Amino acid sequence: MNTLTVSLAERSYPIYVGDDLLSHAELLTKHIKGKEVLIVTNTTIAPLYLQQVSEQLADYRCKSVILPDGEEFKNLEILNQIFDALLENHFSRQVTMIALGGGVIGDMTGFAAASYQRGVPFIQIPTTLLSQVDSSVGGKTAVNHALGKNMIGAFYQPQCVIADTNTLNTLEDRQLSSGLAEVIKYGIINDPEFFSWLEDNMPALRQRKPSVLAEAIERSCQDKADIVAEDELEQGVRAVLNLGHTFGHAIETGMGYGNWLHGEAISVGMLMAADLSQRMDWIDNAIVERIKNLLLAAGLPVTSPEEMSSEQFMSLMSVDKKVQDGRIRLILLKDIGQAIISDDYDADKLVATLKAFQH
Amino acid sequence: MNTLTVSLAERSYPIYVGDDLLSHAELLTKHIKGKEVLIVTNTTIAPLYLQQVSEQLADYRCKSVILPDGEEFKNLEILNQIFDALLENHFSRQVTMIALGGGVIGDMTGFAAASYQRGVPFIQIPTTLLSQVDSSVGGKTAVNHALGKNMIGAFYQPQCVIADTNTLNTLEDRQLSSGLAEVIKYGIINDPEFFSWLEDNMPALRQRKPSVLAEAIERSCQDKADIVAEDELEQGVRAVLNLGHTFGHAIETGMGYGNWLHGEAISVGMLMAADLSQRMDWIDNAIVERIKNLLLAAGLPVTSPEEMSSEQFMSLMSVDKKVQDGRIRLILLKDIGQAIISDDYDADKLVATLKAFQH
Repeated sequence: MNTLTVSLAERSYPIYVGDDLLSHAELLTKHIKGKEVLIVTNTTIAPLYLQQVSEQLADYRCKSVILPDGEEFKNLEILNQIFDALLENHFSRQVTMIALGGGVIGDMTGFAAASYQRGVPFIQIPTTLLSQVDSSVGGKTAVNHALGKNMIGAFYQPQCVIADTNTLNTLEDRQLSSGLAEVIKYGIINDPEFFSWLEDNMPALRQRKPSVLAEAIERSCQDKADIVAEDELEQGVRAVLNLGHTFGHAIETGMGYGNWLHGEAISVGMLMAADLSQRMDWIDNAIVERIKNLLLAAGLPVTSPEEMSSEQFMSLMSVDKKVQDGRIRLILLKDIGQAIISDDYDADKLVATLKAFQH
Repeated sequence: MNTLTVSLAERSYPIYVGDDLLSHAELLTKHIKGKEVLIVTNTTIAPLYLQQVSEQLADYRCKSVILPDGEEFKNLEILNQIFDALLENHFSRQVTMIALGGGVIGDMTGFAAASYQRGVPFIQIPTTLLSQVDSSVGGKTAVNHALGKNMIGAFYQPQCVIADTNTLNTLEDRQLSSGLAEVIKYGIINDPEFFSWLEDNMPALRQRKPSVLAEAIERSCQDKADIVAEDELEQGVRAVLNLGHTFGHAIETGMGYGNWLHGEAISVGMLMAADLSQRMDWIDNAIVERIKNLLLAAGLPVTSPEEMSSEQFMSLMSVDKKVQDGRIRLILLKDIGQAIISDDYDADKLVATLKAFQH
């Protein structure tokens, strides 16, 4: 097992990465202060891991709530089921909440923990590659609104994150690839060495070799933790983590939540960002090709959904959180390992990129 | 006009207290950073003051949302109407929200501001005495859940508070008395001089003499600000501000939100706390009588609702946020001006107090 630390002064917390960590009760219990625990999970994960986690907590008043599985349930109404469970069990401000599941469960549990009685502690047990490398690091929690993704939420840090590589064995191939999109993102935005390492190790990752998976998770978490430590509330540099996300969120919203996986949408979005950077002459075509080939090797899509026109893209992108004074700010590239936040691109080149990605 | 400052490092903010402040555009505009404003108000306040406030903001893209009036609408469902308005207007992270109304509007707008895109700035314009002296200071925001009051919320500070004593001229007498309960509370918990001042000036306050009202508001806000500055997240001393609230919340929940006004319930609750403190021999009966007489002079109730039994009280009090490891912690008195947080009282004396207050 390896331990990384996300450094945020008094909100610092450890990330544990390794095999079979769910059997180690002390990883959980040393981060639980009171005697009350609510585990939040979903209908897919509950049959796989809920019993195993509950058994480690026999000395606590431990209850669970099982939500429906899917991005389409990440809303205020389903969030209220968590508050129902907390209040029906008369849980106090001393309760510790545990998020057992993927990014949706982590985001909802984190926001519920931030809001219940104005804030109670919580622990992340991410069970997908995507949530292990992305949503469990950095304290972004949220639910969706019918008019926009992640529009209602809080910055709120967990007590610890337990990333058990064993849980990835039950993951569908498509979900694994979705997680790899975010792994690749860290290489592209600020870690060119890691990008090269991924080019060499992509086959082993897709074969789920535990030691290679663990290394990719650790390096991704470290890269993200370094950026978050610099800019917890996303006032500046942290925004580079959104590479591909303005394009990607448009795909997710346009296609209906849950039809395209997050990583699939981000894959296309990152390549769009590279394409636009190349049209601006900031990077050459060889870099765009390297990115495209790595995404393809990870089993990810590289063209946008047939159903979406460039006009629909523009309309959806204009409601994204990255809009400032009416101008869409994008994360673009000056090199592999060098992402920038910019609204200094030609609007007609953006349209050309959107058109180039249509079938 | 007088200006107080709530000192919370980079979250510090001013409270402006005075006559006719809603006509001073610069008080608002110097705290608005972007070009987008959403005013949140209710059906009672909108006809009285919405136009006046909107007119000060002609240079901004200013929209409003008008919620139904009443504590019974302070829930997640009505909160979502604020998010609807923000998103339908395509408001970005640069929007400033303005809470124009009493405590319910302040609490809901504050929580919406804390949560929209994970946090946007907001300004409080409290239009009731209760919200001017209580909910606009200290950053507690929340909505109710069917199973408990203020159970879902955040600690979130405004950019400024504008307390215009003119707005109190349209307040019903019963609402004015409700606000006076919280004013009296500050005297009881840590300001014996202010308590004596209130004994002398209660008739002038009930006659709404502007200079006397302004002095009471300033002193209340200062007393609260001092305590909040010491303990922003209510880890310790801030809890004394809850004098009477565990009893009072039981009355509000037991009688149905909105039937007893908050200050009315707190009035009875504070006297219950004094009564229990006297039964513990911590204070003598003369102090209980002084408190009772001042509450009566303010037009407030001093006996609990006929409909509620002591058993119902105990059951409702046990779900309050102040419960720790199953024991109800109460704010009790050692003197006027000296409140303590304690679970070191005799349980049978608590029952005796509850029974003594029944009709």
